[in-house]
Amino acid sequence: MMLTPERMAPLKARRLGIDTHHEPTLYLPAQSHVCRSEGFESLSRVQVTTHQGGHLIASLNIVTSELLGDDEVGFSESAWLRLSLNAEDPIWLSHPKPVQSLSHVRAKVYGHALSDLQFQSIINDIVEGRYADVHLAAFITACGDDNLNDTEITALTEAMVKSGSTLDWKLPLVVDKHCVGGLPGNRTTPIVVSILTACGLTVPKTSSRAITSPAGTADTMETLTEVSLSLEKMRDVVSQQGGCLAWGGAMRLSPADDMLIQVERALDIDSEGQLIASVLSKKIAAGATHVLIDIPVGPTAKVRSQEAAERLASSFRAVGSNLGLELQVLFTDGSQPVGRGIGPALEAHDILAVLQNDNSAPPDLRDRSAEVAGAMLAMVKQISLEEGTRLARETLANGSAWEKFRAICNAQGGFRLPPVAHYRYALVAEHTGSVSRIDNRILAKIAKLAGAPADPAAGVEINVKLGDRVECQDVLLMIHAENAGELNYAVEYLNEHPHVIELSNH
Amino acid sequence: MMLTPERMAPLKARRLGIDTHHEPTLYLPAQSHVCRSEGFESLSRVQVTTHQGGHLIASLNIVTSELLGDDEVGFSESAWLRLSLNAEDPIWLSHPKPVQSLSHVRAKVYGHALSDLQFQSIINDIVEGRYADVHLAAFITACGDDNLNDTEITALTEAMVKSGSTLDWKLPLVVDKHCVGGLPGNRTTPIVVSILTACGLTVPKTSSRAITSPAGTADTMETLTEVSLSLEKMRDVVSQQGGCLAWGGAMRLSPADDMLIQVERALDIDSEGQLIASVLSKKIAAGATHVLIDIPVGPTAKVRSQEAAERLASSFRAVGSNLGLELQVLFTDGSQPVGRGIGPALEAHDILAVLQNDNSAPPDLRDRSAEVAGAMLAMVKQISLEEGTRLARETLANGSAWEKFRAICNAQGGFRLPPVAHYRYALVAEHTGSVSRIDNRILAKIAKLAGAPADPAAGVEINVKLGDRVECQDVLLMIHAENAGELNYAVEYLNEHPHVIELSNH
Repeated sequence: MMLTPERMAPLKARRLGIDTHHEPTLYLPAQSHVCRSEGFESLSRVQVTTHQGGHLIASLNIVTSELLGDDEVGFSESAWLRLSLNAEDPIWLSHPKPVQSLSHVRAKVYGHALSDLQFQSIINDIVEGRYADVHLAAFITACGDDNLNDTEITALTEAMVKSGSTLDWKLPLVVDKHCVGGLPGNRTTPIVVSILTACGLTVPKTSSRAITSPAGTADTMETLTEVSLSLEKMRDVVSQQGGCLAWGGAMRLSPADDMLIQVERALDIDSEGQLIASVLSKKIAAGATHVLIDIPVGPTAKVRSQEAAERLASSFRAVGSNLGLELQVLFTDGSQPVGRGIGPALEAHDILAVLQNDNSAPPDLRDRSAEVAGAMLAMVKQISLEEGTRLARETLANGSAWEKFRAICNAQGGFRLPPVAHYRYALVAEHTGSVSRIDNRILAKIAKLAGAPADPAAGVEINVKLGDRVECQDVLLMIHAENAGELNYAVEYLNEHPHVIELSNH
Repeated sequence: MMLTPERMAPLKARRLGIDTHHEPTLYLPAQSHVCRSEGFESLSRVQVTTHQGGHLIASLNIVTSELLGDDEVGFSESAWLRLSLNAEDPIWLSHPKPVQSLSHVRAKVYGHALSDLQFQSIINDIVEGRYADVHLAAFITACGDDNLNDTEITALTEAMVKSGSTLDWKLPLVVDKHCVGGLPGNRTTPIVVSILTACGLTVPKTSSRAITSPAGTADTMETLTEVSLSLEKMRDVVSQQGGCLAWGGAMRLSPADDMLIQVERALDIDSEGQLIASVLSKKIAAGATHVLIDIPVGPTAKVRSQEAAERLASSFRAVGSNLGLELQVLFTDGSQPVGRGIGPALEAHDILAVLQNDNSAPPDLRDRSAEVAGAMLAMVKQISLEEGTRLARETLANGSAWEKFRAICNAQGGFRLPPVAHYRYALVAEHTGSVSRIDNRILAKIAKLAGAPADPAAGVEINVKLGDRVECQDVLLMIHAENAGELNYAVEYLNEHPHVIELSNH
């Protein structure tokens, strides 16, 4: 049966190839009969119906140019893909029903605590695409500051878990970790997972790609092996090797989180509740039973004071306990970058050096990996932190972490060596002195201008740490790029920001 | 001097004719060198620089189709017009500086009261286009419920006034009115302004066009005379006639309000603070000293209970007093439509009938206009409400309001008769009975489907009031349209909603 809302003649679907991220957007000619009869205007929310009964709510942009014919309706990529359309498919537009769960968002604005069911209906509507970005912004703002109590954070986390896929490993002990607010180069995850799986633990690790940074763990791992695993493939790898290092993006684990994060970043509104729900929903959906939360504390890190770190840790523990998770928090040093490389392949080289016990391995990356893995071993093996850290160091030193890492890579599709960039530029010290300041933000920007993460070999190699003594003409950092153009952008930016590494005169 | 941010080769400007409302949006091909080198992605905020030194912050959509050449950048209408671009103008894109005032929005989220200066910097950034819609949504949400105290509402109102043009009439007494949440057909304003100016008051009235309703006062007045006046023309009219009935949209009176309203409507988050600041900033910018706020109270009106009306009135009075305004509140009946016509020309015919003392004039529109004008006369002439209302009725009855109305129309560009629609459809009573229920929402929708407000003669004429006795075959309402197609849409919708007017059987 044909669905003909408002009994109007249908429009013809046209793919415009405009990426509006997750927010489905439609483009309608101003002279379209539907615009006039329905009173649609730009930013109206419209209900889309296809001849196969597909439904979607989208935001509308009115087109006043010749971009579209009078009987056409243009689709953004997310709208086109969600409805699995073909060119010229008949399309009907109508006014959508009000989104009921927005009344719960309003209740939160008016200061009411929300119930499990209310969070569930909000999250369901978000995942179904019924919220425009402004609605997501209102929800995030209403949950901002400490407006969610631990019971509400628990309900929000559970709702986010239920909205997507979940993994059940049928095991009493499944381990995971998360680092709150990464530092450049702080790529401990592949090393920690290798140590823990080598020690017999189950660690089905899923990671994200870079969002605003020069590399995410998934980008780095992709220079070493396959990371786009299906859920089945991931299950195979974990049952063979006890762990994996996969990209989580394709698995629909807590998909509401992926949609909220996009808007949260634009707003930069700190919400402990959203942060905790985001992290723990991903872990629970991935089947974790034991989770370590690594909170780097430092003046340029996400968490800037010990007081703030303690407060965050206390909520993490309360919500984890409500959800039946074993959860521990580790405070780490957040004062400077970790390792030498910033960028997918450069970080991969650091990881290999640590795993292979190479003399050139950055000691801070090795120590930090052992510290995190040690804390997790202590948590699950009922041993002391010292014993845990010692076990982690032994597992690295005797080569079994390296062996396990290769086995995981082979199971995921084969181990490969990360690429090397052919275009380089060195920044050298203009005088003798000691390193007094390193600007993480500028380093990340240089690495991105050089091409990271899209060009995996691009990035920055930093050769000094705070307090290091350097001689005149010593190399402070090296920019890596895959082509001359991007190297130039990065070098020009560096020349405009020579204080990226500051030297004291004595 | 050429500005070349990041020293990159410029892109060529291309007008795409996409109306994204006030939010400037740019469209960049995925394969553009700028996308790669700057790490831009969809929803990134980008700084646009023109060769003439023009600047703008816009949101980005990435285009993956052939819509744009590799060296082109597409502009939405608002972005194109703000920068006054020509085709192929050279354009440079870079990362914008963080918007400082967003830290005040965050402070509001965290429950802090904001200062005058903080509101001023938020409103300035909004007017300069530095806020994306998600930022506006966060600001609106943070100010939601009763999160603004009267001092903050006062500061917000003053900031909104300062952000745009203001009028100073150099007179001790300038009168204005506002109705909170209009009822269909409640077009008292032209009648009230005519009465007051005929009584010697100064009433420089600016009105809006319809946003979601079948007609705004400016749409209705446009069927009778010119309403798109420049500030100078408006000054002339007011100095000649003591009043005007102009469209406020082109005058930049409180422009921040125009941007916030768009997002507020999408969110449907009630905020008394934003409502009061919106209304009073427009009045103060237009130079008013004495303001009457008309609050219709009824089950389907915006304000549904007397308690809510009293609370709103109390804040209106406090903020008005802080801002040196003489302000009075009038509660009116909000239970059913006012007058007969719904739609620009149909409402204009009602207005003319009242002003001309025609026997067919809708008595409820006449009575309500006299009530509002009477209250305003009482406020400024220090007379009783009864005396004020009597004076208003006399001014209508003796024809001086009608004479003044024509004089204002002539000064604005000439009086004309409103158009009449040639396509009509009557809904008749199927049995004898009395009118027990009228659905305002469905009436408004039928009027819009028939073509209002774009087709000025289109709309609905309603022939009955609650409690009226009707005979079988009496006409209950008449749909007016300018063409057969739109009449059909409206009739089909009416057939699906026959309960728009309900009759009891006795």
